[in-house]
Amino acid sequence: MTAPSAVKAALSSQAIETPSWAYGNSGTRFKVFAQQGVPRDPWEKLDDAAQVQRHTGAAPVVALHIPWDRVDDYAALARHARERGLRLGAINANVFQEDDYRLGSVCHPDAAVRRKALDHLLECVDIMDATGSKDLKLWFADGTNYPGQDDIRARQDRLAEALAAVYERLGEGQRLLLEYKFFEPAFYTTDVPDWGTAYAHCLKLGEKAQVVVDTGHHAPGTNIEFIVALLLREGKLGGFDFNSRFYADDDLMVGAADPFQLFRIMCEVVGGGGFGPGVAFMLDQCHNIEPKIPAIIRSVMNVQEATAKALLVDRDALAAAQSAGDVLGANAVLMDAYNTDVRPLLAELREESGLDPDPVAAYHRSGWAEQIIENRKGGQQAGWGA
Amino acid sequence: MTAPSAVKAALSSQAIETPSWAYGNSGTRFKVFAQQGVPRDPWEKLDDAAQVQRHTGAAPVVALHIPWDRVDDYAALARHARERGLRLGAINANVFQEDDYRLGSVCHPDAAVRRKALDHLLECVDIMDATGSKDLKLWFADGTNYPGQDDIRARQDRLAEALAAVYERLGEGQRLLLEYKFFEPAFYTTDVPDWGTAYAHCLKLGEKAQVVVDTGHHAPGTNIEFIVALLLREGKLGGFDFNSRFYADDDLMVGAADPFQLFRIMCEVVGGGGFGPGVAFMLDQCHNIEPKIPAIIRSVMNVQEATAKALLVDRDALAAAQSAGDVLGANAVLMDAYNTDVRPLLAELREESGLDPDPVAAYHRSGWAEQIIENRKGGQQAGWGA
Amino acid sequence: MTAPSAVKAALSSQAIETPSWAYGNSGTRFKVFAQQGVPRDPWEKLDDAAQVQRHTGAAPVVALHIPWDRVDDYAALARHARERGLRLGAINANVFQEDDYRLGSVCHPDAAVRRKALDHLLECVDIMDATGSKDLKLWFADGTNYPGQDDIRARQDRLAEALAAVYERLGEGQRLLLEYKFFEPAFYTTDVPDWGTAYAHCLKLGEKAQVVVDTGHHAPGTNIEFIVALLLREGKLGGFDFNSRFYADDDLMVGAADPFQLFRIMCEVVGGGGFGPGVAFMLDQCHNIEPKIPAIIRSVMNVQEATAKALLVDRDALAAAQSAGDVLGANAVLMDAYNTDVRPLLAELREESGLDPDPVAAYHRSGWAEQIIENRKGGQQAGWGA
Amino acid sequence: MTAPSAVKAALSSQAIETPSWAYGNSGTRFKVFAQQGVPRDPWEKLDDAAQVQRHTGAAPVVALHIPWDRVDDYAALARHARERGLRLGAINANVFQEDDYRLGSVCHPDAAVRRKALDHLLECVDIMDATGSKDLKLWFADGTNYPGQDDIRARQDRLAEALAAVYERLGEGQRLLLEYKFFEPAFYTTDVPDWGTAYAHCLKLGEKAQVVVDTGHHAPGTNIEFIVALLLREGKLGGFDFNSRFYADDDLMVGAADPFQLFRIMCEVVGGGGFGPGVAFMLDQCHNIEPKIPAIIRSVMNVQEATAKALLVDRDALAAAQSAGDVLGANAVLMDAYNTDVRPLLAELREESGLDPDPVAAYHRSGWAEQIIENRKGGQQAGWGA
Repeated sequence: MTAPSAVKAALSSQAIETPSWAYGNSGTRFKVFAQQGVPRDPWEKLDDAAQVQRHTGAAPVVALHIPWDRVDDYAALARHARERGLRLGAINANVFQEDDYRLGSVCHPDAAVRRKALDHLLECVDIMDATGSKDLKLWFADGTNYPGQDDIRARQDRLAEALAAVYERLGEGQRLLLEYKFFEPAFYTTDVPDWGTAYAHCLKLGEKAQVVVDTGHHAPGTNIEFIVALLLREGKLGGFDFNSRFYADDDLMVGAADPFQLFRIMCEVVGGGGFGPGVAFMLDQCHNIEPKIPAIIRSVMNVQEATAKALLVDRDALAAAQSAGDVLGANAVLMDAYNTDVRPLLAELREESGLDPDPVAAYHRSGWAEQIIENRKGGQQAGWGA
Repeated sequence: MTAPSAVKAALSSQAIETPSWAYGNSGTRFKVFAQQGVPRDPWEKLDDAAQVQRHTGAAPVVALHIPWDRVDDYAALARHARERGLRLGAINANVFQEDDYRLGSVCHPDAAVRRKALDHLLECVDIMDATGSKDLKLWFADGTNYPGQDDIRARQDRLAEALAAVYERLGEGQRLLLEYKFFEPAFYTTDVPDWGTAYAHCLKLGEKAQVVVDTGHHAPGTNIEFIVALLLREGKLGGFDFNSRFYADDDLMVGAADPFQLFRIMCEVVGGGGFGPGVAFMLDQCHNIEPKIPAIIRSVMNVQEATAKALLVDRDALAAAQSAGDVLGANAVLMDAYNTDVRPLLAELREESGLDPDPVAAYHRSGWAEQIIENRKGGQQAGWGA
Repeated sequence: MTAPSAVKAALSSQAIETPSWAYGNSGTRFKVFAQQGVPRDPWEKLDDAAQVQRHTGAAPVVALHIPWDRVDDYAALARHARERGLRLGAINANVFQEDDYRLGSVCHPDAAVRRKALDHLLECVDIMDATGSKDLKLWFADGTNYPGQDDIRARQDRLAEALAAVYERLGEGQRLLLEYKFFEPAFYTTDVPDWGTAYAHCLKLGEKAQVVVDTGHHAPGTNIEFIVALLLREGKLGGFDFNSRFYADDDLMVGAADPFQLFRIMCEVVGGGGFGPGVAFMLDQCHNIEPKIPAIIRSVMNVQEATAKALLVDRDALAAAQSAGDVLGANAVLMDAYNTDVRPLLAELREESGLDPDPVAAYHRSGWAEQIIENRKGGQQAGWGA
Repeated sequence: MTAPSAVKAALSSQAIETPSWAYGNSGTRFKVFAQQGVPRDPWEKLDDAAQVQRHTGAAPVVALHIPWDRVDDYAALARHARERGLRLGAINANVFQEDDYRLGSVCHPDAAVRRKALDHLLECVDIMDATGSKDLKLWFADGTNYPGQDDIRARQDRLAEALAAVYERLGEGQRLLLEYKFFEPAFYTTDVPDWGTAYAHCLKLGEKAQVVVDTGHHAPGTNIEFIVALLLREGKLGGFDFNSRFYADDDLMVGAADPFQLFRIMCEVVGGGGFGPGVAFMLDQCHNIEPKIPAIIRSVMNVQEATAKALLVDRDALAAAQSAGDVLGANAVLMDAYNTDVRPLLAELREESGLDPDPVAAYHRSGWAEQIIENRKGGQQAGWGA
């Protein structure tokens, strides 16, 4: 297996991006269970994100969601982040929460609604300019619920037109990251339902357009690491939205439902040259019933552990067994790395960086949880809708 | 095929139960799109349900959901229904929308929460006494999101205890209908996830306990008509929650996603002796983007059409082909009924009952849609949360 | 709705391609149930296919599978077909049934095996030249069963190399049709698992390379008509392998499991301009327990019925409702066509062409079934392995 | 966590049952790839099974499949096993590989076929008497491929009748283990498709009838450990058929596709009191492309590793976190055990028992693989069909 020192060096370079909205309340269509101490604005979300970074040292980037994180002064927000050891990451557009978007946004049959949605997307690029964000992440809730409701091809035409307009607006060093999703909230067609659709659009747009793989957005049984390998081979993998699921888009903590799958995904990232600045490791999760900050810390650790294992894989032994057609031998090389307990190695790495070896315990000892419950009384708690 | 007159006689006896909550707003976790003219209280919901009954003649029963339909005087509500040609159907309990239920209701680890949930269930039986409802429909959102979160067997013990207490409270002629659901809102375990679990509990409870089949609550690929046949064979099918889905629990209009499946289900109902007073034909749907009243009318018609086709099946020819092992012949008998256009027959039936042959068109002409938009201004629109 | 005469004219132009192997024995991994009267060579398969054409008038093309249909003189085989009112369609390559292919064919880690597989593909183009076939259909069983077994990206490189070599060899008017499949016989990765992968390869190859949609080769819940619409929009839909399924790749008769889905697919074909010479309507089914010839007749009829309904859709009314955002209205236009009983129209069409209005009954009366049982004694029955 | 000595003591008592058929050839419907050195009869299968036991010390039981393992003298076969440190386990009946069973066996519409199938089942009990086997394992391929093909309820009646006749025949200490399967080889209905159906039948039969959980026989997304917990709670879990899958019933090595799921299953077994003589830990896998004996050794080790981790779970800490409603804490207790590398503990256990710490390496060094290739030339290799 790879030397621990090399593994630690690689791990030190990994920056995991946490989503501002995961610090706020979330839920299902049945109920949002409010939690105590939840942030009431983007500034407080960054304060919480700083706690995750403080204890893990691996989560220095925070993604924003507009309009949930709309502020008057984005430069000030970026400064607030920097002062806490953070930087602002992807800007996530939202064109699904206004009444106008009942039948879609950029794919809507009505040109006026499409224009409104496009304006919002362009506004998000303005915000990127202000925050210094490099990535515009686009997920569209667009789709239809009933056969015949709208024309599939016409909607693709509208989508292509909007994407082209946004792409045109991108500045130097900025990317458009297109996310796909199997279904929900649309229940018959979804306008970007799979990696193939996202890939086809990005291919036409050009080099600055890449695909985002949300690990919860696939049909049952889909081999996600295969998609990751393909997109890396095509230079079209822009990043991940990490989370995990047993059923649909459950948005559980990454690594909670199928840690072996997460490992296999990270193996393709490592093996496919995706472990570098080009691929964003973002979380996109909902902590509906568990406390949010420790859940995010745990999630960051899960990504680190899967990455460590993937880095440990003895690539030479693997390649040798593969080319010899040694099915069991090649599988055993992979499983050897997976079965290794990498927690001691990560504890060491943390201690070498001046961190507590156990981030969750350190967070609990820090008193932050009690402090925010005490201090954040009154006001409107942040959530998906605010 | 069966004689049209016999089919029409059977259809005339079919009572479809519409859910009060389908007249209110609903949505996904991403957005509830409010519609104009939506009822603001249970009385107005019944007014809308009366329109469905007025135009279809097949939807004389309305299910209530407590607390969404809580009123001071249930007898008055029942009278309001009767005056509109309706009767009140199943009482649906709700033990998932208070903060106390974050980790479950009757399966919660804390006895105090379980007691609170049980009290609500017992209150629902009180309401049944007041409304004259015969059925208590129980669906529990209980479950867990993470492996290890709670003990599966202990939760079953708690569930069994609560069900026994409710069962004990049932009066003469009252039933406990237990609904199962594959997943959502719980994303790891669900305490009543499949028909087997519901069946096992109902078996222990006794004759007044039966299973409800919600057509959207199964794993991908599940053969629902098989379950229907089994439950009928065991005398344990209490009724349906009809809706349709392409993916998860999409809650689309019944018959919209897979009309052939609905037909096969109705074939088992007809063939298994379920077409009688013992099996409740309830709708449980969400009309998130389409107008609610015409969507419910369309749904009632879809159930009628599937039922008509199932009644048309030439049972003797089918049995003959089956016992001869004639695979294609037996299948052809079924398909012959399915491929028949039963809309003329249903139009005739409606005209014979003094109804318009085209209920949707008649509704649109009636002016009701415009009237409620005009009259129901102000107030709080009814929805899942109210 | 569209005028019946226009519908009939369009239906008259539809040529459905039946697969030679469907006339032979097939089964599951558990058992192949031999049937009486099954063909023993490609000549007899064509004799059976001629019966399907004789009674339906809609199945004039027969696909071959090499080596199952290997003969010494392909020109003679083409002549045998022509004499029976048939022509030879797609040539289907087989690189999965020799021991060398245990770990794959064109993606195999060993260059010698890849060379052998490529040689077979090139041989198939030679056969196309001899038979006058226009389409080379490529389905690869290639994949892996265990994580780590082989390198996903390296296999893609090998695949691309082989496809390029085959593409290079194609003559004027010949196409390479690339089929994808979700899984089976490989159980971890499949080298062409989805439309996106097939599309990406075809795009690089050029205009003569197109994608084949096998309706049984998708993840649960996949919206197939969406894929059809996208591929048509991109000019990359080469044809269909029709069959139906409830679970995996069940290979049941097309239209048997979900006739509404088949209708929706045909709606996209009709609406997307795919109803012409460019899109091949092929069957690819297994008649494991039912008699093969009547099953194929029934399948051809199912495709015709779905096509007729799709042709009946009132496109103007549909477009008007769609652009008005009338969800229920647009859906109703589609359902109106679907709910129409098109069997009388098809019976008329057949009679106008001098055919019996009921092809299955006519086949049963013809005595062919008894004749082949009598005549085809001895010899080796054709099957997947021969 | 539990003390290593206690974990080792428990592991020492675990007896894993390997299936005789896994030593023979297997494949998919597309191809069976023959391997060198494969046994040609039940005696040689036991010789191979003895190698698995020799190197793991944890696989002392071998299941037989009739007629594949039919011999003249079962007492001699049992003696052959004993002489190699083995004993004969479950007798697996086969009523799916004769032409008579095209439409089913005990559920077939024809009483003569049902009688034939029943006779075979009764013969299997005779064999149990001769071999000293305690368990009769029943899996039925029965089902239908097309809607309408046969009557679902009538088939249940026939099934119940056959099961009752077999149950009646069971001797002292013998059990009937009923296996369910979601689908395949039947593609529309399967007569025992889920645990609920198997449970309902076993309940009526009595105490000697229990359910077998094959880990590959569920709908996508099914929570298998939940079923295990329920069956244990009801005293109805008879045993497992272990294997793993990504898609359908892939029959890959247990633990290969989702090792975390296997761990969760073993957690329920340990927690539910299933870790004792009552629950049989059987393998049921196909080694289509990998060498069989090392694949089975690896599978036995995978079960041991999952069991070791489940035994390590700190049950007191888990219960405390669960009753406190500490979602993340309870999950962390489970994950702590899962993330532990138990290979050193198992290596120790083996060395204490006089075994090589690395069973796969020891097998490869033993020369057995070369020896059987040399010695087993000629004859008919064993496979699913022989």
